[in-house]
Amino acid sequence: TPRRHCAALMATGTLYLIPVSLGPAPLTLTTPTEVTSRARSLDYFVVENAKTARAELKRFKHPAPLRDLDIRELPEKPGHADLDALLAPLLAGRDGGLMSEAGCPAVADPGALLVRRAHERGVTVAPLVGPSSLLLALMASGLDGQSFAFHGYLPIDDEARKRRIRELETESARHSRTQLFIETPYRNDRMLEALKA
Amino acid sequence: TPRRHCAALMATGTLYLIPVSLGPAPLTLTTPTEVTSRARSLDYFVVENAKTARAELKRFKHPAPLRDLDIRELPEKPGHADLDALLAPLLAGRDGGLMSEAGCPAVADPGALLVRRAHERGVTVAPLVGPSSLLLALMASGLDGQSFAFHGYLPIDDEARKRRIRELETESARHSRTQLFIETPYRNDRMLEALKA
Repeated sequence: TPRRHCAALMATGTLYLIPVSLGPAPLTLTTPTEVTSRARSLDYFVVENAKTARAELKRFKHPAPLRDLDIRELPEKPGHADLDALLAPLLAGRDGGLMSEAGCPAVADPGALLVRRAHERGVTVAPLVGPSSLLLALMASGLDGQSFAFHGYLPIDDEARKRRIRELETESARHSRTQLFIETPYRNDRMLEALKA
Repeated sequence: TPRRHCAALMATGTLYLIPVSLGPAPLTLTTPTEVTSRARSLDYFVVENAKTARAELKRFKHPAPLRDLDIRELPEKPGHADLDALLAPLLAGRDGGLMSEAGCPAVADPGALLVRRAHERGVTVAPLVGPSSLLLALMASGLDGQSFAFHGYLPIDDEARKRRIRELETESARHSRTQLFIETPYRNDRMLEALKA
């Protein structure tokens, strides 16, 4: 009946999207207090990497012993069955948190697939405010933020990377569009050389 | 002399990029405490709109009487002379804040030009964490966040908007790229109809 359907929806837990620190910055600079207290109130987490998630929950001063928390890793390429298993506690009415390895979950990590499945299954999704390297870099760059594109990682292979940089240059010139991508620290010098060339 | 040059650089103030609330949410949910206290410590602000900036500084519980604060509006299309005048207090060693009407400054507003000029003039730029409608929408959407593009506002004219939506659809399909844009609340229904069509 419609009434029972409504009751089932109301019993569903909420999936909170919890941003994670980008480095050794104090919590008071990176995270609003209600976001920290929300993370502290949860005992179920779906995470990109269990080890870094535990470190972050410790930094949040989660009151429970970490071994008592239910922390499950998101597979790199999860199927519907994986996602439904991870959402089962939420469908049973328990709240949960989604955390990536750094920054905002579901941006530049596989968390978006869990969020999408949560919508399909009628689980409420609540994004929370926190640090995002992409956004902080864009703000601080002085480049046009009215139009921009983010591309994740560029190819590692020299020739493929060169081609990709040329594509981004063309897109930037044609649409006056700022281009954003990520690189790991140990490849930064190489990337800067390629950009200069 | 190099020594004098160095002293001049060190005396420059910092331009803090202060995110502004997106609506009637409690500060404790939107803004880390050190961001609020940084905003409270400043008495010079460059803003998109003086009225909304004063309201936000009141919400931040700025300790000074608002009429004692130096709040200057950024022109919509500022030239170098405008930007240099706005940066003069920072070049003289005073810290300042940049605030847009809502969300993160220098993203989808003219603040990026001030940031760019600040870099050119050797003023330190410090982006701070806070709410961004673009990022929260992207996180909560369940759409691919590994690759996305932001386009600001789409055209208002029906035919031009239709053409633009088709362009974005093509870009989305060709590059598997999530497409983000903004719309004002009173045009939302029309936009949704155009997207459905």
